[in-house]
Amino acid sequence: MTTTAATDITFGLTRLTDLPGITAAGAAPLSAEDIAQIVAEADRFCRAAILPGSRAADREGAQYANGVVTTPKHYPALYRQWMEGGWQGLSAPAAHGGQGLPNSLWFAVLEFALAADTAFALGPMLTAGAIECLDHHGSTEQKARLLPKMIAGEWTGAMCLTEPQSGSDLGTIRTRAEPLGDGRYALHGQKIFISWGDHDCTEDIVYLVLARLPDAPAGSRGISLFVARKLREDGSRNALRCGGIEHKMGIHASPTCVMLFEGAEAELVGEPHRGLAAMFAMMNNERLAVAVQGVAHGARALELAEAYAAQREQGGRVIAQHPDVARMLTEMRATTLAARLIVLEAAAAGDRFRLTGDAVAEARLALLTPIAKAWCTERGVETASLGVQVHGGMGFIEEAGAAQVLRDARIAPIYEGTNGIQAIDLVARKLGRDQGAAMRALLAEALAQAPELRIPLARLGAVTMQVLEAQAENPDTAQSVAFAYLEAAGWVLGAWLLARAAAADPKAYGALSDFYRKRLLPRAAARCSEIESVLAD
Amino acid sequence: MTTTAATDITFGLTRLTDLPGITAAGAAPLSAEDIAQIVAEADRFCRAAILPGSRAADREGAQYANGVVTTPKHYPALYRQWMEGGWQGLSAPAAHGGQGLPNSLWFAVLEFALAADTAFALGPMLTAGAIECLDHHGSTEQKARLLPKMIAGEWTGAMCLTEPQSGSDLGTIRTRAEPLGDGRYALHGQKIFISWGDHDCTEDIVYLVLARLPDAPAGSRGISLFVARKLREDGSRNALRCGGIEHKMGIHASPTCVMLFEGAEAELVGEPHRGLAAMFAMMNNERLAVAVQGVAHGARALELAEAYAAQREQGGRVIAQHPDVARMLTEMRATTLAARLIVLEAAAAGDRFRLTGDAVAEARLALLTPIAKAWCTERGVETASLGVQVHGGMGFIEEAGAAQVLRDARIAPIYEGTNGIQAIDLVARKLGRDQGAAMRALLAEALAQAPELRIPLARLGAVTMQVLEAQAENPDTAQSVAFAYLEAAGWVLGAWLLARAAAADPKAYGALSDFYRKRLLPRAAARCSEIESVLAD
Repeated sequence: MTTTAATDITFGLTRLTDLPGITAAGAAPLSAEDIAQIVAEADRFCRAAILPGSRAADREGAQYANGVVTTPKHYPALYRQWMEGGWQGLSAPAAHGGQGLPNSLWFAVLEFALAADTAFALGPMLTAGAIECLDHHGSTEQKARLLPKMIAGEWTGAMCLTEPQSGSDLGTIRTRAEPLGDGRYALHGQKIFISWGDHDCTEDIVYLVLARLPDAPAGSRGISLFVARKLREDGSRNALRCGGIEHKMGIHASPTCVMLFEGAEAELVGEPHRGLAAMFAMMNNERLAVAVQGVAHGARALELAEAYAAQREQGGRVIAQHPDVARMLTEMRATTLAARLIVLEAAAAGDRFRLTGDAVAEARLALLTPIAKAWCTERGVETASLGVQVHGGMGFIEEAGAAQVLRDARIAPIYEGTNGIQAIDLVARKLGRDQGAAMRALLAEALAQAPELRIPLARLGAVTMQVLEAQAENPDTAQSVAFAYLEAAGWVLGAWLLARAAAADPKAYGALSDFYRKRLLPRAAARCSEIESVLAD
Repeated sequence: MTTTAATDITFGLTRLTDLPGITAAGAAPLSAEDIAQIVAEADRFCRAAILPGSRAADREGAQYANGVVTTPKHYPALYRQWMEGGWQGLSAPAAHGGQGLPNSLWFAVLEFALAADTAFALGPMLTAGAIECLDHHGSTEQKARLLPKMIAGEWTGAMCLTEPQSGSDLGTIRTRAEPLGDGRYALHGQKIFISWGDHDCTEDIVYLVLARLPDAPAGSRGISLFVARKLREDGSRNALRCGGIEHKMGIHASPTCVMLFEGAEAELVGEPHRGLAAMFAMMNNERLAVAVQGVAHGARALELAEAYAAQREQGGRVIAQHPDVARMLTEMRATTLAARLIVLEAAAAGDRFRLTGDAVAEARLALLTPIAKAWCTERGVETASLGVQVHGGMGFIEEAGAAQVLRDARIAPIYEGTNGIQAIDLVARKLGRDQGAAMRALLAEALAQAPELRIPLARLGAVTMQVLEAQAENPDTAQSVAFAYLEAAGWVLGAWLLARAAAADPKAYGALSDFYRKRLLPRAAARCSEIESVLAD
């Protein structure tokens, strides 16, 4: 018995993470039926509206000519459908026109949208991040002025962080904010890799920009957050423009812009010099959204591969029945489900924290975020690559679509903090801040729920302490095994969540959990061996 | 201390596989100095002539219009340089104008050419395969007529096997060969995925085509091998043409053609109905050539990543000094060297067998061929992907070149027999034909040379016997773990060869071998666990 992405998500939200129970603590309790209905409707919309144009979007790509960025021909109308469906405001604050639904549900919608057309869905994903950032850090007046348009989808949002010399290290940002005397600022500088930095789907765009005030201290404590719009209040163009778009391996239809700020009028958001902290608070949620990309790429790759393998005959039977192809398909399915459940587990912790202020949930969210971002996107690339392999020669031909999934998937381990950065965040910050207490609590919970995983859970626990010791004694050595540690943790947590799924519904998930434990979980042991060998020196 | 690809290859050929000793048994003994000189010259030529145009070649791609295939603008002149340098005939028979050098050296040249521009080097690679096939199976007259032009590089060769319904299973080929009464045949049918099937680099092209004679038995024992040329002897066009080229994920400049045979005049090569056997003999060597592609992609990815990491600064130091980036670079280096040494080991066995007829060498070659093809190309894709990751955001931008390596690398696990097919070949044929004797001999040799690998060698030996038992009892179960077995074997053999390299030159290879044993070899144990768990059921 195989399940669809929609049934897996509904199962995860209602029977594993108990979203009905979590939301019961908030103002808007959701029943399992509500959840199933929203999930099904999002699935339906994305398949009907977004998916059919995704191959054409990849071929056309975003274009830049004479300073103007255009997206694929069908994007403006598609964006309008997205907007009119009310999808943008799903989890946005009700005070400004959103539906105020939990983030877990937003991620469910996002998975379908990203699976249908990653390049398209990136626009709404980044707008949601900008909404969240302004909602947390904007003034009451800024929120009242900007959020309703963004939540309605009339304006998109873009995050302007990276500069040519500032990638993983944002402390070296050079963009300047010059006070104009009236409380406003003029921004001068160049930002790169700005997804949906310019486009033809909405009239206006809201830019959140990291820049330095004149009196700013050097380094990361001297960076402030500003908001600027493409249009001024009077409708004239602000002094900012797209200087060009990148020619990329994938997500061709997502315009990746060089943005030039040439005295653009902007407002400060939050406190001076506290911009990086404000951006990082938002970025944590964006990191989970990128984890969803990994799941979405796995899900789309699986769907294409299963469909191909069910009809392609070789050697007198469809290739889905060839044992090695069946192995690949099951690996894709098990890995993608594990990744999905890790994201849902993290998202549930976030929703619980937001609704109840529960400190345990906050620590769980903080711990799971880097694991979800890195592990799920690593698996997204691997699963997309397996999807190509299932297609044989056709996998390499663009018209089959499998290659596009792989090309699109390859960016996810890089942006919103490379997976190497996630691993360092996990070891140095997330383990370091409580000496592994949140991880130990997680492992204890997993052991109680899945005692059959005693050995891998205990080994991960032991390795956790070794990594913490290394972090105290020799941070460079700890960093050199941080990625291996994150991988080990992801494989073990995936086994735990699949075991829970199997316990809750043996018919649907028992065989998959079994496959994972036998065939994939040994990869955690390999990573633990790696860490033990390196740290034994 | 780091080494270049050229020094690694020379080291491998002279100090690990002892090519001087092997060639001493043949007519043309080669000294270590000869080998080093040829390797250095090939490296120099490929860097100077082929590499500079590879990005442009990818952007331009092969084009098809009005029935005519054109390659990138600089290819015809580049091809002429290749031809005039005499590279095509390096390992071709001296009787027909070749240099008769060992295949090991041809693979060394091929690694540089493939690393410089995979799409370009595929043409010469396939021509070499066609030369070998005709040399083994053609009549004396055919050889005298066709080989000198091919060996000189004046005509290229193309292999026409796949049809829309016949991929991994060639038994269902439908192309017909109709006797013309004068000893010649007219070919009717459609072939797909024909690399360099048509192009503008040479006037004529030699096609080796699998087709059925009118009286052919059904299935794979009814397939014959034919040779056809693009031009007839009188210079007129033969009745074959390119019907279109594919839009692919990578190797854009290599024209992947649909070839239409519309009564094309052709000659039988070898015995009727024995075409598949003839083609497979040649294909074994092509499989090693594809293994070389995996090495070449790893080598090129490493070169780009090391150069980028040496100049990109973040956090006050170049990223090559960040522990996690250093880990990625060393993983790329260790994996690529292991893959290179596996190819050289297989190639040396082939050269020894060809020069001396040694049956042990023949069995070693047969055993190592599927491992080399699949393991090296899996690693090529992974290493190319790590190379993208080292570049951060720039890795996804096409101008950096890292993405192209990954796109080009992704085909290698698919063509010349998918890696799943290689795994089945390894388990069902290569282990099955001597009940694992050749594998046991290899493991015993490895244990004698690298006693520190006792545990992984013993475990691989035990798993070998379990897989053989499964193959006898339940072939489908054996096939379902065949890929895991091949992966385990590759990781262990890589450790053995790096241990030998470290023993021969500890300063150059000691640290790399150590890194591999600690960090990468545990992946073999994970694969053994997987197999044990599945077979325990």
